[in-house]
Amino acid sequence: MTTLRIAGGQVLRPDMTVERADVLVDQDAGEILEVGVEAGVGDELLEADGGLVIPGLVNGHTHVAMTLLRGYADDKPLDAWLQEDIWPVEAELTAEDVRAGAELGIVEMIKSGTTAFSDMYFHVSEIADAVDEAGVRAVLGHTAITVGKDEEGAEADMQESLDVALELDGAADGRISTTFQPHSLTTVGEEYLREFVPRAREAGLPMHFHANETEGEVEPIVDEHGERPLAYADGIGLLSPENFLAHGVHVDDEEIDLLADSGTGVIHCPASNMKLASGMAPVQRMLDAGVTVGLGTDGAASNNDLDMFDEIRDAAMLGKLAADDASAVAAADAVGLATAGSAQALGIDSGRIEPGANADLAVVDLAAPRLTPQHDLVSHLAYAVNGGDVRHTICDGDVLMRDREVLTLYEPRVRDAAAERADALVERAGDE
Amino acid sequence: MTTLRIAGGQVLRPDMTVERADVLVDQDAGEILEVGVEAGVGDELLEADGGLVIPGLVNGHTHVAMTLLRGYADDKPLDAWLQEDIWPVEAELTAEDVRAGAELGIVEMIKSGTTAFSDMYFHVSEIADAVDEAGVRAVLGHTAITVGKDEEGAEADMQESLDVALELDGAADGRISTTFQPHSLTTVGEEYLREFVPRAREAGLPMHFHANETEGEVEPIVDEHGERPLAYADGIGLLSPENFLAHGVHVDDEEIDLLADSGTGVIHCPASNMKLASGMAPVQRMLDAGVTVGLGTDGAASNNDLDMFDEIRDAAMLGKLAADDASAVAAADAVGLATAGSAQALGIDSGRIEPGANADLAVVDLAAPRLTPQHDLVSHLAYAVNGGDVRHTICDGDVLMRDREVLTLYEPRVRDAAAERADALVERAGDE
Ligand SMILES: [Zn+2]
Ligand SMILES: [Zn+2]
Repeated sequence: MTTLRIAGGQVLRPDMTVERADVLVDQDAGEILEVGVEAGVGDELLEADGGLVIPGLVNGHTHVAMTLLRGYADDKPLDAWLQEDIWPVEAELTAEDVRAGAELGIVEMIKSGTTAFSDMYFHVSEIADAVDEAGVRAVLGHTAITVGKDEEGAEADMQESLDVALELDGAADGRISTTFQPHSLTTVGEEYLREFVPRAREAGLPMHFHANETEGEVEPIVDEHGERPLAYADGIGLLSPENFLAHGVHVDDEEIDLLADSGTGVIHCPASNMKLASGMAPVQRMLDAGVTVGLGTDGAASNNDLDMFDEIRDAAMLGKLAADDASAVAAADAVGLATAGSAQALGIDSGRIEPGANADLAVVDLAAPRLTPQHDLVSHLAYAVNGGDVRHTICDGDVLMRDREVLTLYEPRVRDAAAERADALVERAGDE
Repeated sequence: MTTLRIAGGQVLRPDMTVERADVLVDQDAGEILEVGVEAGVGDELLEADGGLVIPGLVNGHTHVAMTLLRGYADDKPLDAWLQEDIWPVEAELTAEDVRAGAELGIVEMIKSGTTAFSDMYFHVSEIADAVDEAGVRAVLGHTAITVGKDEEGAEADMQESLDVALELDGAADGRISTTFQPHSLTTVGEEYLREFVPRAREAGLPMHFHANETEGEVEPIVDEHGERPLAYADGIGLLSPENFLAHGVHVDDEEIDLLADSGTGVIHCPASNMKLASGMAPVQRMLDAGVTVGLGTDGAASNNDLDMFDEIRDAAMLGKLAADDASAVAAADAVGLATAGSAQALGIDSGRIEPGANADLAVVDLAAPRLTPQHDLVSHLAYAVNGGDVRHTICDGDVLMRDREVLTLYEPRVRDAAAERADALVERAGDE
C-alpha cells in the first residue's frame, strides 16, 4: 500500500467543523485512511501548513467543452442565446474541439479545487479521454435531443445516449461513471422518453436531464400534458434516487415534495440562472423538504468560469434573496451543496473527509489578505475564498496539482490549443 | 517631468473598446499623458505584455476597517446583524484597530486592482494616514448617527462629521477628498439633518449617506414624513450632483426621476444587498433614466471581501434578475459602474484611460485558463476575471503593486497586525 500524508493543515469535517489534523490517504485504493493529529507517516508528503484541507468540490452540472465559447455571446436570454449563438457554433464542433475544450475546463477545475464533475455533451469519448489523462473523476454522458429531428435521427440520438453510457461506465480506472441524458422535458418528445427511459432504467443507468429552468418552459408542459413538469417527469419514470436534474428553478411545493419523496437530486446552477435571468431556485425550501441539492456551474458560456467557489458564494447569496431571509442558505449549507450535496446527487462517495471516502481533496491556502482575519473558516469558504486560493488538488489519492502547478496536463499547451481551436471554430461558424 | 510607460498590453478605452496600446503617465502630475502605440519612451517601464490595462477600479461605498469583522457574523438580516453583532463590537474599536483594519482593506484593494474608495467610518484620521502611506485615492468622512443619543451627543457627532470633512480635504497630497456623512435617513433625526445639511452645503462639502437599502426602512419614513425617502431627502437638500447615496435598492419611478434630475449618484452594492437579503436594486432602470450609478463593496462583513471584480459580476448578474431580462446590465455597463460610474459619483477624475485623467490604473494578467479563449475581454472583466488576476496597480502615477507585490505597505505585517487586533477585539467584545 502506498500512502500520502497531507500534513500540517486544518481539516473541514463532514459536520462543517474545522479541526487541526493530518489526512492519510491510501493511494492504491484511492481512499482516505485516517484523519487526525496522529495520522501515520505516509510514503509521500503534501505540505498543508497554514492551509485548510477540504473535500474536492463536485461540479454537479456542466458542459465542460463549452469553455471554447466563454465570452462568445453574453447578455442574452436562454432561448435566443441557444438558437442564435450557441447551437450554430456547436454544430461546427469537431471531436478535436471537444477534446481541447474539455482539457481547458478540466485544468480550470483542477486549479480551483474541483475534483469531480458531471457533464452533458457529445463526442463524449473525447471528454472521457481528457478525464482519464487529467486524473479527475467524472459522470459523463451523451445528451440526446429529439425536437427538430426526424424519427430516425431522434431514435439514433436517444440510442447513442444509452450506448455511450453503457460503454464508458467504469472507464479511467473506475473514475468515470455515466448517465443516460435526455436533454430536457421540452427538447425530447414524450414518445421517446416513454420508449427510452424504461430501457435506461432496465440497463441500470442513472439519468441526468435539465428541468424547470425557465418559466417559459413550464407553461408548454402544463398545456400539453395537463400537469406540472415534474409530475410529468415522474409519470415517465424520470424521478428516482439515482437520477438528478439540473436547475429546478421554477418548482412549486408539490414538485418539491415529489423531488424529496423520490430522492431525485437537483443540481442548482445559480450563476447560470442569474446570467440568463432564468430566476431564483427555492434552495432553502428544497433543503427544508429534504431534497438532495448539489451545485453546478453549468457551461462556461453562461457563467463564465468553472470556479465552484463562485458558485458556493452565489448559492448563499441568491438563496437568501429567493427566501427573502438573510439566514437562508447559510455558509455551511452552501459549502455542503458543493461537496456532500453534489456527491450524493451524482452517486459518488466523495465530498466528505472521512476514512473510507474517496481521497478527493483540495488544500486552500489561507494567506491572502482577503482571508484575514480567520474568525470563521467556513464563512471564508462560502464568501471570500476563490479558486486561485487553492494550492493542492488530489483526486482518487493522486496529486493532480502541487503548489498551484497542474501535474497531469501541461497548462500552457492546453491553453494555447483551446485558444487556437476556439478562434478557428468561431471563424468557421461565421462563414456559414 | 518623470514619466512611466505601461508597455505592451491592450488597453480598455472609455467607449469599452479594447485596443493594443501603451499608456504614458506623467508621474509628477499623476496624470495620463498619452495612449497609443506611439506613446513616448518613459523614464520608468512597467511591462504589460499579455495583459489588459484598465482604469483602476473605484469602490464607491465601503467601511474599510470592517475587514476586522470579516466572517465574524454571517447569515443574519441587516437589523439584527447590526444591533446584535456589529455595533457591540464596533463600540470596542480603538483608533489602532481602525488603522489595522484600514491597512488590511487597502492592501486587499490594491491587490485586486482598486485604486480609489469612498469610506464611511470613524477614527477617520487613522484611515487617512493609511491612505497616505498606501498611495491610494480616497473620499473619506466621519459617519454621524443621532438616534439613541442625547441632544449634546447628537450635535457633537454631526459637528464632528463636518469638522473631519473640512480638516482632511486635500490630505495625502490631494489624493484624499471628503464628504459630510449623515449615516442614513432613519438613523439621523430630521432636526439634525435640517440643521447640518445646509451648513455642509455652505461649506462646499459633498455628502454621502445610506438610503433606501431595505424595505423596512421605507415604511417608517413614509409614515413619519408623508413622502417616500428620496422626496424627503430632496426636501432636506440632500440631493445634488456632488452628493451620492449607498444602496438605492427600494426606489420607485418617481425616486429614480428625482435621482436623475438632481444628478445625485447612487452606489450600488449588490453583494451586500444579496447577503443581507435587502433586495435587488433596479440598476438598468436607473441607467435608462440617466442616474449616475457607481459600484461598491460595502463593508467586508457583509460581502465578505473587497474584490470589486466580484461586485462587477454581481452587478451584471443581479441586474438581469432584477430586470427579468438577460440583456440588462450587460458586461460593458457593469464594468462602467465600477470605473467611470463610481468615479463620477465620487467626483474624482479617474475611471477612464484618456490623456488628462488621473493615472489610476490596473494591469490584468490574462494568462489564466479561466480567461481562455479571448473572444471578448470586456466579457472577461465582467464575468471571469477576479482580483487575483491583477498584476500591477498604479495610482496617481505611482506603482503601488508590481508583479503582485505591494510596494507601499508590507503585506505580511499588515495581515499579522490585523489578525491579532481582530482576535483581541472579538475577545474584548465577548467579555462585555
Ligand atoms: Zn446545462
Ligand atoms: Zn454601508
